[in-house]
Amino acid sequence: MPRWKPDAVDRLQDAALELFAEQGFERTTVAEIAKRAELTQRSFFNHFADKREVLFGMSAKLQEEVVREVEEADDAGPPLDTVVRAFGVVADKLLEQRRDVVARRYAVIAANPELLERELGKNAALTDAIADALRRRGCEPGAAFLAAGAAMLAQQAAFRTWTRPGETRTLRDLLPAAAEDLRTTVGAS
Amino acid sequence: MPRWKPDAVDRLQDAALELFAEQGFERTTVAEIAKRAELTQRSFFNHFADKREVLFGMSAKLQEEVVREVEEADDAGPPLDTVVRAFGVVADKLLEQRRDVVARRYAVIAANPELLERELGKNAALTDAIADALRRRGCEPGAAFLAAGAAMLAQQAAFRTWTRPGETRTLRDLLPAAAEDLRTTVGAS
Repeated sequence: MPRWKPDAVDRLQDAALELFAEQGFERTTVAEIAKRAELTQRSFFNHFADKREVLFGMSAKLQEEVVREVEEADDAGPPLDTVVRAFGVVADKLLEQRRDVVARRYAVIAANPELLERELGKNAALTDAIADALRRRGCEPGAAFLAAGAAMLAQQAAFRTWTRPGETRTLRDLLPAAAEDLRTTVGAS
Repeated sequence: MPRWKPDAVDRLQDAALELFAEQGFERTTVAEIAKRAELTQRSFFNHFADKREVLFGMSAKLQEEVVREVEEADDAGPPLDTVVRAFGVVADKLLEQRRDVVARRYAVIAANPELLERELGKNAALTDAIADALRRRGCEPGAAFLAAGAAMLAQQAAFRTWTRPGETRTLRDLLPAAAEDLRTTVGAS
């Protein structure tokens, strides 16, 4: 009874996330991941440089897409909204179909200080890249820095809601509300 | 001709920052730091667990003081302003007299991805601790998360200005303006 087999990348990612959650990131080997996915180590290394890459392989793609969306946005509104809209488009494309995988990935990262620092480094690089993209759109450097940081903050707030058990709204739905919450919190006087 | 000798901690810190800037963090040994400071390695280890501690030893103290200022603040204004004021008080106490050391420390960290990730981890811990303190003051969790993140962003913007060559205003002076800039950037529509 052959069962339907999803893509090797998905199977390896699922197997890795299961094992990281069960026994910790450090204690999991590539051999175990390949075995759980019913694939060879060679197949693993065809897709990932190492086990860390299973967690962070998406970062470059995500950054590239967000930056492109910001650069190509044709709205002339506040930079925070431009970035939040860009996040929404990219979330629909890259994250929405795998809420469960993304949430499990984050749980693994949050449980390991070293991985968390790596994740924070990726987020800082993304923030810088967004600020650069805003500058290329004519935004003044100081405002670009603040708008990029504020957008990351709204994105993190939306992400926290999105990964709550039972939550059904999409990230794209949640992002504008998070930006509004930030405006209220920051602007209240 | 004996010259005046500042505290061992200051001398070790100065020597370490000089060497990190000259030859990189990784390549600098505790033996070299002690020698440059005209002290023994034993004296170094009386004050620091390792060379990383020279860079991050202040983080715990800074977090403790900021959290206490937030908890003890008697104003009832927006949480962003409460935190920004707390940063100002602590900056006067811990950072203002050593602008040069703080700026050199940051340059060393920014030049080393591993140290930068560590710094980002410390900042994330500080943000969480501030959000917790705001919650203890009765702030709703979502607003506490956003206000703490926004305050960190304003603090980073103020810090960038403060460490510019020739800048003479204090961090405490610069912080409210940075918070205002954030309000303008985020609120503009």
